[in-house]
Amino acid sequence: MGQEERVFAAQKPIASERYGQVRQESERLCRPLAIEDYVIQTTTEASPAKWHLAHTSWFFETFLLTPYLPDYRAFHPQFSRLFNSYYDSVGVQWPRTRRGELSRPTVAEVYQYRAHVDRAMGELLAHWPESAEAAQRFEIGLQHEQQHQELILTDLKCNLGLNPLAPAYDKLPEPPEGEPAPLEWIAYDGGPVTIGMSGEGFAFDNERPAHTTWLQDFRLASRPVTNGEYRAFVEDGGYERPEWWLADGWSTLQRENWRAPLYWRYQDGQWFEFTLGGLHPLADNLPVCHVSYYEADAYARWAGRRLPTEQEWEAAAGSVAIVGNFRESGYLHPQPAPPGELPIQLFGDVWEWTASAYTAYPGYRREGGALGEYNGKFMCNQLVARGGSCVTPQEHIRVSYRNFFYPADRWQFLGIRLAEWA
Amino acid sequence: MGQEERVFAAQKPIASERYGQVRQESERLCRPLAIEDYVIQTTTEASPAKWHLAHTSWFFETFLLTPYLPDYRAFHPQFSRLFNSYYDSVGVQWPRTRRGELSRPTVAEVYQYRAHVDRAMGELLAHWPESAEAAQRFEIGLQHEQQHQELILTDLKCNLGLNPLAPAYDKLPEPPEGEPAPLEWIAYDGGPVTIGMSGEGFAFDNERPAHTTWLQDFRLASRPVTNGEYRAFVEDGGYERPEWWLADGWSTLQRENWRAPLYWRYQDGQWFEFTLGGLHPLADNLPVCHVSYYEADAYARWAGRRLPTEQEWEAAAGSVAIVGNFRESGYLHPQPAPPGELPIQLFGDVWEWTASAYTAYPGYRREGGALGEYNGKFMCNQLVARGGSCVTPQEHIRVSYRNFFYPADRWQFLGIRLAEWA
Amino acid sequence: MGQEERVFAAQKPIASERYGQVRQESERLCRPLAIEDYVIQTTTEASPAKWHLAHTSWFFETFLLTPYLPDYRAFHPQFSRLFNSYYDSVGVQWPRTRRGELSRPTVAEVYQYRAHVDRAMGELLAHWPESAEAAQRFEIGLQHEQQHQELILTDLKCNLGLNPLAPAYDKLPEPPEGEPAPLEWIAYDGGPVTIGMSGEGFAFDNERPAHTTWLQDFRLASRPVTNGEYRAFVEDGGYERPEWWLADGWSTLQRENWRAPLYWRYQDGQWFEFTLGGLHPLADNLPVCHVSYYEADAYARWAGRRLPTEQEWEAAAGSVAIVGNFRESGYLHPQPAPPGELPIQLFGDVWEWTASAYTAYPGYRREGGALGEYNGKFMCNQLVARGGSCVTPQEHIRVSYRNFFYPADRWQFLGIRLAEWA
Amino acid sequence: MGQEERVFAAQKPIASERYGQVRQESERLCRPLAIEDYVIQTTTEASPAKWHLAHTSWFFETFLLTPYLPDYRAFHPQFSRLFNSYYDSVGVQWPRTRRGELSRPTVAEVYQYRAHVDRAMGELLAHWPESAEAAQRFEIGLQHEQQHQELILTDLKCNLGLNPLAPAYDKLPEPPEGEPAPLEWIAYDGGPVTIGMSGEGFAFDNERPAHTTWLQDFRLASRPVTNGEYRAFVEDGGYERPEWWLADGWSTLQRENWRAPLYWRYQDGQWFEFTLGGLHPLADNLPVCHVSYYEADAYARWAGRRLPTEQEWEAAAGSVAIVGNFRESGYLHPQPAPPGELPIQLFGDVWEWTASAYTAYPGYRREGGALGEYNGKFMCNQLVARGGSCVTPQEHIRVSYRNFFYPADRWQFLGIRLAEWA
Repeated sequence: MGQEERVFAAQKPIASERYGQVRQESERLCRPLAIEDYVIQTTTEASPAKWHLAHTSWFFETFLLTPYLPDYRAFHPQFSRLFNSYYDSVGVQWPRTRRGELSRPTVAEVYQYRAHVDRAMGELLAHWPESAEAAQRFEIGLQHEQQHQELILTDLKCNLGLNPLAPAYDKLPEPPEGEPAPLEWIAYDGGPVTIGMSGEGFAFDNERPAHTTWLQDFRLASRPVTNGEYRAFVEDGGYERPEWWLADGWSTLQRENWRAPLYWRYQDGQWFEFTLGGLHPLADNLPVCHVSYYEADAYARWAGRRLPTEQEWEAAAGSVAIVGNFRESGYLHPQPAPPGELPIQLFGDVWEWTASAYTAYPGYRREGGALGEYNGKFMCNQLVARGGSCVTPQEHIRVSYRNFFYPADRWQFLGIRLAEWA
Repeated sequence: MGQEERVFAAQKPIASERYGQVRQESERLCRPLAIEDYVIQTTTEASPAKWHLAHTSWFFETFLLTPYLPDYRAFHPQFSRLFNSYYDSVGVQWPRTRRGELSRPTVAEVYQYRAHVDRAMGELLAHWPESAEAAQRFEIGLQHEQQHQELILTDLKCNLGLNPLAPAYDKLPEPPEGEPAPLEWIAYDGGPVTIGMSGEGFAFDNERPAHTTWLQDFRLASRPVTNGEYRAFVEDGGYERPEWWLADGWSTLQRENWRAPLYWRYQDGQWFEFTLGGLHPLADNLPVCHVSYYEADAYARWAGRRLPTEQEWEAAAGSVAIVGNFRESGYLHPQPAPPGELPIQLFGDVWEWTASAYTAYPGYRREGGALGEYNGKFMCNQLVARGGSCVTPQEHIRVSYRNFFYPADRWQFLGIRLAEWA
Repeated sequence: MGQEERVFAAQKPIASERYGQVRQESERLCRPLAIEDYVIQTTTEASPAKWHLAHTSWFFETFLLTPYLPDYRAFHPQFSRLFNSYYDSVGVQWPRTRRGELSRPTVAEVYQYRAHVDRAMGELLAHWPESAEAAQRFEIGLQHEQQHQELILTDLKCNLGLNPLAPAYDKLPEPPEGEPAPLEWIAYDGGPVTIGMSGEGFAFDNERPAHTTWLQDFRLASRPVTNGEYRAFVEDGGYERPEWWLADGWSTLQRENWRAPLYWRYQDGQWFEFTLGGLHPLADNLPVCHVSYYEADAYARWAGRRLPTEQEWEAAAGSVAIVGNFRESGYLHPQPAPPGELPIQLFGDVWEWTASAYTAYPGYRREGGALGEYNGKFMCNQLVARGGSCVTPQEHIRVSYRNFFYPADRWQFLGIRLAEWA
Repeated sequence: MGQEERVFAAQKPIASERYGQVRQESERLCRPLAIEDYVIQTTTEASPAKWHLAHTSWFFETFLLTPYLPDYRAFHPQFSRLFNSYYDSVGVQWPRTRRGELSRPTVAEVYQYRAHVDRAMGELLAHWPESAEAAQRFEIGLQHEQQHQELILTDLKCNLGLNPLAPAYDKLPEPPEGEPAPLEWIAYDGGPVTIGMSGEGFAFDNERPAHTTWLQDFRLASRPVTNGEYRAFVEDGGYERPEWWLADGWSTLQRENWRAPLYWRYQDGQWFEFTLGGLHPLADNLPVCHVSYYEADAYARWAGRRLPTEQEWEAAAGSVAIVGNFRESGYLHPQPAPPGELPIQLFGDVWEWTASAYTAYPGYRREGGALGEYNGKFMCNQLVARGGSCVTPQEHIRVSYRNFFYPADRWQFLGIRLAEWA
């Protein structure tokens, strides 16, 4: 933890400014919303925007203001119960499935809560305690808020997209037309490689420690699978024949009646796709998005390929610049593969499913206390996705960044990059 | 149906005025709400206020404007799907369990929808068609809106009451203190009696035809059971001993973990009750409210009594004036039994559970068409409640009025009046 | 209870003989079974034959031997837990849904249990206590065993009938061919009638007290609805159009994917029906059987008729001799309407659904103690069926006999007799 | 596949003998059973013994007799539907959850089915086709039957163990008393290692190809965790405090109300354990058994250790002789750690949970056809367990053998060996 302290010391002059930027960004993302859009929750995963705004404030209140700011008074005694997400050691929680059942606090009250926390954080930053733990928590608080910014957009897409009226979140720029670059295969040599975060900068505990692993020779697709390619799978009976599917995937498909990716709609003989900009005819040239691991895996098997491991992905991405279609581009939707050095689109556009179970790196130790619940307790039943998406803040991503999802999850901007054995 | 036509002809001069009053009343009831309060649904029964405002408008649009107003253009092509409640013959519906998952249309758009329908209804009323069916539908449309006014309050109580913050719907008058009148038993002679609506005024089809039935001698309690009396049952282990309960009631109690009426909360060694005015210490002198049939029946067995049949209730109520604590009193909560002629409080305060299954009267025929789905198709698995409550519009109630609920329902203002064999 | 005592005193000389006959009959019914057939339970309703044999013995053990036979030792200390059915006041029970999960006690051990109980009952009958309660319990024990004899056959039909191999319970006689008598309508005058058991003989408490009720004029169908008539409903889209159905029936149909009565199977372009004799082509001339209340009610509405009330049924049946196709005929399946005085087949063949909710007669009081749980606690959510079926022991039925089922139940031999308003 | 052909050619003289031995062993295991014990299924995992006997025969019938024995006639046309386990490409299946609902075919008929298949296999072995595929299928058929022998015992334990009577499968030898050897830590150096099956002998496709992987330095416990050690965790509130648990484990514990390993029962102030020999006081010196991954992982975290990866396990086990307490010992229960070279008990006694997700080895390709469903389609959501147990046939196990289970599975003989970072 000396590391975080050093990091914080270095950045202290700009801490207030950075805090303000991150916090304001969350509110900026909500500007297109009607009050009603803040309230609803259409599935367990898709929390209300109002909840995200409050929960991120609760995080600063609980882990920084209450322990470190003398005489801090919590905004409301019940908010801890309402806006705790999953920290079992911080007391009773309002059930995650029922976040959309609370009309109060109102949106206006939640903004007051944010202002209350921001004022107090201003005080705390002005009289910052000499504490490595506080420095670490400050950094995690900002990273945490960025994660929830991504979720605000992801969850809004879900909460608007299940409405038969298909309301747009905002007016979005049109994606370019034209064919995507043809799929090519980039070869990589096997052998020992170092994986994980070794540097000094911020990283979550699940990215550490850096360690050696061993890769076989492999080839990686030059770009993600497109809607057009995936449509061929759908039209070849992909969702009707069990032979391509994992056993658990096939039973999920049958139970959930899956027929296509989450936001595809078949109307009047044509495929449409719901985006944050509303309902549009399906564009074949865009990366396919909002597929579960089961669908990604079945597609890969149908295509005679496989999904990469997270080690292969990280080895390939290690020498690639972190540029791409992130939230800052304003598209808020994956874009066609641009020309450029291959492989392309490893960063941004869509989170790429890997075949790797989300598990601890060798030498990993779960931290104690409530923040020890941040990552480690989810290391079961989930798979790693890499590279960020078109709704990820660019500064939030790293080559070692590990996101993780259940194999049936589809509400995130999850896509497919193929791999094959050499 | 000649009847409705006659009724309508008689009242035509005042039809527009009455339409306006009823429609405005729905909106007046929503005035204390924050936008967020219009949106949520905490259980299947408790539809969002926004939905009620739209659904009642959809009713006029579907059953009057579309068939009878030339060139009427529906406000939105998808609203029929979103705001149909249960009319299977009018097409696909948005699932009842998911009404709280729609942020759009917004509250403002729903009010625009209401204004659109009201303008068109003004036109239609100005050029009224000679049609018994239209006259009947107009009357049913107003009655239907009054039913939903009651539901707006009932459902808001539920949607606010499950929130740990226990927000009040509005500031309500304090109920008087003091002991309720002691419970007395009023004796009635048996023999043939006529039950059901025989007159010319409006009544739902389920109240007709009037017919003879035969009663045994019985006695009826002079007033409903109070919180204090019911608390004695709770404190005597009423929710822990199966011997008082119906088999289905006991298994429901165990599955739902019932320990007291719906809005009772035990905090810091004391009972509280949530009302539309917020959380208050439980007042022993008020009628007990928000109990299921199972609880009403178990209480009656514990007390060595039984629930009356709907025929007994109607026979007893036939000679009683329809006055009482209705919505117009503004209490929006049951009040202590006032002095007066016994039995008292048959009308208003709480709907009184009867032991009678909701079923067709002899000679009843279900009507054809979508409005034939209004009542008849629910004649199974439900029980009749009588007399209206503190959130029922006074003009809406009749001695023959039959409301009906599943035996596990508790979200309505449902209470208990005891009976016994002579 | 003086009544039961008198009854018992009168029959004491033949009590042992009668006990033996009833008990042996249960075992005779199981003679065609393989050991495996005794064990399984395919739905909650269809208890294993082994369980019925043990449970009926547990009844005598619990309610007669333990309290009345000095020094009686229970056969096994755990059997009370395993073979209690629903007497909540007699302690913890093995869950009803899991009776098919117990391989032990074995079938042989269950027969030893029966022999143990029968020996002890022989002793008790030889030294009979002067006790009205014991006399009543003895009679109820025999009636109870007869009820379970019917269930043994009903449940075996279910447990064998869901097997794709469609194994026959036994070789059964062929039903006669030929057209059934045409449907006629018998008119009955309304007015006051007496319903319920008034005589001295045995009756369950739910048949008492006899009391006056009032009927409107009505007409009753001369015989039950046939397979051929019901097939016309099926082929007219009866299971695809909501307009004929109760709301709860329609949702049940959709959830359970009902397409026809329970034991109809459509194979290679033809309807078959599973009977206790195996799978046979559907015979149009037999009464339709194994329909739920929802189906019976929907059929009646489609046919422009209705179901009778239990009062109408009893009024009509009061003057009819109790003869018909009962278990003793050996058909174990409904037979075509024979020639004879109309109405016909009121007794035997199929239990006839009535439109009457199963509820207490005026003046009914639930008895105390465990046997008080026998009937009264089920008086909610169920409907009355009348007349017995082809698997009911003839001596078990009475004109006042009330059986009761949930509206979705289909595993019993339940059929349809229509009625209409005069 | 040339490999299997060579293997088969080499062993052909003894193929019939080996076939007979394996097939008879399945039947020998069922000799202690009552007919009733063959029939029941208490949870989805625990198939009836009857089903195992039939399913293993169906395997030979479907994959060898039908394609390779001219004029072979299937024993029964419906058995393919009833006894297919999960081969989606071989047609409609009887649901796995409902295998205990079939009384027919009877046990006797299933033994006839086995005899029918064995006679035909005798013919086929006498005129063996020159076919690599047939040779492979023959071997897989035997391996498959051995897997189901283990399941026969595992599932019987479950099907008997949930019965309140706790019936023993058979009389078993008493385990020795005395303290187990103290826990020691064996150190292993990291670096590149080869994992997976490289030799010529039989192995499942999921054990291949052999490949290089990279290990960090680690230490492995000298023996599995004992009942006594695990009891300390239970008594320290292990099942009451979320901090030791994975998130999904904690919610499973709450939903399933776990309080101890599957077969522990707390009666009269003392812990008992159900074994195939009946109910016995819990022996602290035996390895803990029938714990889920969630419990194994929580125990390890409580103990300040972790679970090994399957690569660590295989690296450690590579130099250890495959001896131990297997089915052949007749104990059918884990035994105390014997003296000997450390680590001990890697093979036999209990399957050891690893922290490794069950996934494809680098270079793995799922085979086509129905046998391609054997392993590959389960490579999601499960974790690898290693080393076999006290009910595994000794000849069935290999150092490269990978078994796999869902993290909530407890019905197998699953135990815990700890590891730690060096």
